[in-house]
Amino acid sequence: MRRWNGWGDDGVDVHVPPALQTLLGGALGPGQPSRDVTFDAVCAAVPPSRLAPHPLVDTEAAVRARHARGQSLPDLIALRGGASLVFPDGVAQPSSESEVDALMALAAERGCSLIPYGGGTSVTGHVNPLPGPPVVTVSLARLDRLRHFDEQSRLATFEAGIAGPAIERQLGALGHRLGHYPQSFEYSSLGGWIATRSSGQQSRGYGRIEDLFAGGTVVTPAGTLRLPPFPASAAGPDLRQLVLGSEGRLGIVTEAIVRVSPLPEVERFETAFFPHWEAALSGARRLAQSGVPVSMLRVSTPLETTTTLALAGRTRASAALDALLRWRGARDPARCMAVVGFTGTGKRVARARREAFDALRSVRVGASMLGRAWQKGRFRAPYLRNALWEMGYAVDTVETATTWKEVPATLVAIEAAVRGALGGEGERVHAFTHVSHVYTTGASLYTTFVFRAAATPEATLDRWSRIKAAASEAIVRAGATISHQHGVGTDHAPYLAAEKGPVGMRALGRLVSAFDERGLLNPGKLLPPGA
Amino acid sequence: MRRWNGWGDDGVDVHVPPALQTLLGGALGPGQPSRDVTFDAVCAAVPPSRLAPHPLVDTEAAVRARHARGQSLPDLIALRGGASLVFPDGVAQPSSESEVDALMALAAERGCSLIPYGGGTSVTGHVNPLPGPPVVTVSLARLDRLRHFDEQSRLATFEAGIAGPAIERQLGALGHRLGHYPQSFEYSSLGGWIATRSSGQQSRGYGRIEDLFAGGTVVTPAGTLRLPPFPASAAGPDLRQLVLGSEGRLGIVTEAIVRVSPLPEVERFETAFFPHWEAALSGARRLAQSGVPVSMLRVSTPLETTTTLALAGRTRASAALDALLRWRGARDPARCMAVVGFTGTGKRVARARREAFDALRSVRVGASMLGRAWQKGRFRAPYLRNALWEMGYAVDTVETATTWKEVPATLVAIEAAVRGALGGEGERVHAFTHVSHVYTTGASLYTTFVFRAAATPEATLDRWSRIKAAASEAIVRAGATISHQHGVGTDHAPYLAAEKGPVGMRALGRLVSAFDERGLLNPGKLLPPGA
Repeated sequence: MRRWNGWGDDGVDVHVPPALQTLLGGALGPGQPSRDVTFDAVCAAVPPSRLAPHPLVDTEAAVRARHARGQSLPDLIALRGGASLVFPDGVAQPSSESEVDALMALAAERGCSLIPYGGGTSVTGHVNPLPGPPVVTVSLARLDRLRHFDEQSRLATFEAGIAGPAIERQLGALGHRLGHYPQSFEYSSLGGWIATRSSGQQSRGYGRIEDLFAGGTVVTPAGTLRLPPFPASAAGPDLRQLVLGSEGRLGIVTEAIVRVSPLPEVERFETAFFPHWEAALSGARRLAQSGVPVSMLRVSTPLETTTTLALAGRTRASAALDALLRWRGARDPARCMAVVGFTGTGKRVARARREAFDALRSVRVGASMLGRAWQKGRFRAPYLRNALWEMGYAVDTVETATTWKEVPATLVAIEAAVRGALGGEGERVHAFTHVSHVYTTGASLYTTFVFRAAATPEATLDRWSRIKAAASEAIVRAGATISHQHGVGTDHAPYLAAEKGPVGMRALGRLVSAFDERGLLNPGKLLPPGA
Repeated sequence: MRRWNGWGDDGVDVHVPPALQTLLGGALGPGQPSRDVTFDAVCAAVPPSRLAPHPLVDTEAAVRARHARGQSLPDLIALRGGASLVFPDGVAQPSSESEVDALMALAAERGCSLIPYGGGTSVTGHVNPLPGPPVVTVSLARLDRLRHFDEQSRLATFEAGIAGPAIERQLGALGHRLGHYPQSFEYSSLGGWIATRSSGQQSRGYGRIEDLFAGGTVVTPAGTLRLPPFPASAAGPDLRQLVLGSEGRLGIVTEAIVRVSPLPEVERFETAFFPHWEAALSGARRLAQSGVPVSMLRVSTPLETTTTLALAGRTRASAALDALLRWRGARDPARCMAVVGFTGTGKRVARARREAFDALRSVRVGASMLGRAWQKGRFRAPYLRNALWEMGYAVDTVETATTWKEVPATLVAIEAAVRGALGGEGERVHAFTHVSHVYTTGASLYTTFVFRAAATPEATLDRWSRIKAAASEAIVRAGATISHQHGVGTDHAPYLAAEKGPVGMRALGRLVSAFDERGLLNPGKLLPPGA
């Protein structure tokens, strides 16, 4: 069963390897575990619903409690620590477009807000009810069917509530794949990916969701928008692009037509090492600009490399690898690890491997073991957060993207901001970064930070807020985007105007009201209140 | 000097080869040449300007006459036949962003309209003044400088009035290329490409303008929008995508940051033949879906193949080619010609050639001569229109895009509609088509039609209107887009609602008014009047 107060399946526990415990203990001092509140206690705190009964809306306390928060660190702090929560007044689980229409009518009639809810995996507050009018959270979990498959045009039409594994299972049976693997893949939904402009681990090969989302249906307060899946069009602004990143403010995506690919013959993930960060970054840029078809490239800073290897645990194989790397000039603590993905026909993968390692100019070691380990653990990082929390450590990430020229300075600025954010109270922050996605013109930066939980949830949240604000301000000052892949939600909303500008913010506000005159859909998300 | 009443340099004349004359004579009957009006006569018809003098606005009749129309067939009919024209009241040629600001202020103050004008090459009415308030046409010809070049991030910043050849000349000197080659390349401008969602002949390799336009500056009545060139972002809807296809309704693009590539080592265009259309279309789809990196693929129907070969003229080489093709099973009149472009390093081009011809399964002939002929004449088709007009034949094109599954039926519907459109008066229409761009999920269709000019410009325009309406209605009925590459302007505006839907049209209208509350910018274009 899905865990109610943290990531994932509650039958799955990930343990923190001793090497990582030692590393964090040394970097931050001992963790201070806190006691969790129980699900029963949370349910007992759910106030009576303000909604009159409606056949599509469930007002049971347990259901409302389970849909109160997403998966951000503040969500975890609140759910585990027992902060005061805002609950939806009811949860609807429509199973057809016409039921979504009915919910739109309900909202208009009663003036309540609707929050679209896919997998509930947002890390920026997208699904959290805010104080205000009554809220119906609209879970799309039952809209999970494959509706149409056009093999000739490589287009598949899904209901938008379907989650990653079900998409790939159904396409796989037809010999095809979507290829969208965000870290939240196991729970996040197609509609959620679209609404938040999601990026997957292999978006280098398969494209971001912008490239995969060809068309579909969006039910809005102003009526239903149907987007045809043209391969390209010059007929005015592309309405798909308004829906992408709309974060539930324009409507609810009920159906999506996506571009699919045949299943690859071969897929492998390999590791490469660089003697230092400058070499790693140059290699990544050369590969990104070479046109060599890799399906993934991520490159870790030295500290992330050390942390990752600690996480992998000390084994005899890792000791041998370490010796080999030292001998080849990639010495701890300066060395940087890269993971490269290859996907396609056997012949093309073989060719891409040769060309990719040429472009990277990395220290080659026969370390496909680490690549396989990455693949095995590709969706496990969020589980680790549960385990670290239980040791008294809080983990979160910030991410951005910028042009190649600005990548080095942006990275330095973000890490410095994060590391210094708790200096006032003498707390340290362990922060490390990887380039998670590369493009010809630039790259994304993904910084993980770990800090000690404080004595109370409020104090822990305050620590997080200071780190988050410092990082976000550093991103804005560097001229980078406030999000490469997590979206805006509530947490990034204060920083959006810095990149959209006053004219752009005004246009976005007008756009929202063109679809949703009364502001019934997901109010307070994406745009700052009152925008 | 640029021709005032037709395409191109008035020192360049293209002649119609005898074989094409014979073909058209047979298909349509003899042409009926008409007499052109003179430029002096047109200038004499320019009414006094309704604008008070302004230092940035030129109200001279000759300048206003030269900016009255674009390059559509109705424009040609009107300019050469002497139909009654609507002229701008003045033409401004700002040379800085602040002068564009000043023109925006002028428009607001005096309530006049502004029409952004790049190369004046629109074929759908984008630059034509309509009856209404006074009009200032804003030519961006002087905004033609390279402002910044970031080799590391492969980004170049140009002022938006720069035309194709100047872009490539300046980038070429820096060892780079943009790679955007619409047929209008010699005159059309970067800003115009962005505002109309342009596609180039090699967009398969370099991407459409959507892929090349990374950011820039748009001066709007609501203020200036600055779009940062992030490689990717999840921070809400992408404002670039609102500007792309905005057709001057939101603002004037003054500066564009574009993604550039190093100059290729090798570039070649080769021809391939197929025994019939079904084989050609399957081959094109296989190649498009194979991922083999070709920079271009266009495939002609049998009638376009015959017409193209007639246009190439009868030579000894073509007779030998014909014999070879017959022997290899690609017989006239069923055979179809494809042109394939290869661009890149020598090694990759060699590999792509092998793989591309494997995927096409075409009849291979060593006919790179035809590929070179295509390359030499790639921007000459518009010149041919001048020459055919002088023989009494009118030429125009319609274009669309749809999914692979719908391509065959859409083609049949468009050609049937065009060919039958003048049946009522016993006139025939010679129509032929090529797939001009391929994508994994579908392709564009580009249909050329030739008909005889009538006795008066009004009657010729009426013939065109009936053909255009029949073709547009066929496109809409087939569920395809009203434009893959020419934009909407006035000519496609009546058909836009069919694909955007009522909710989408309303959103576009609101979007325009978010930037331009009073409707000062290019009124009547993109959206039907009153939308």
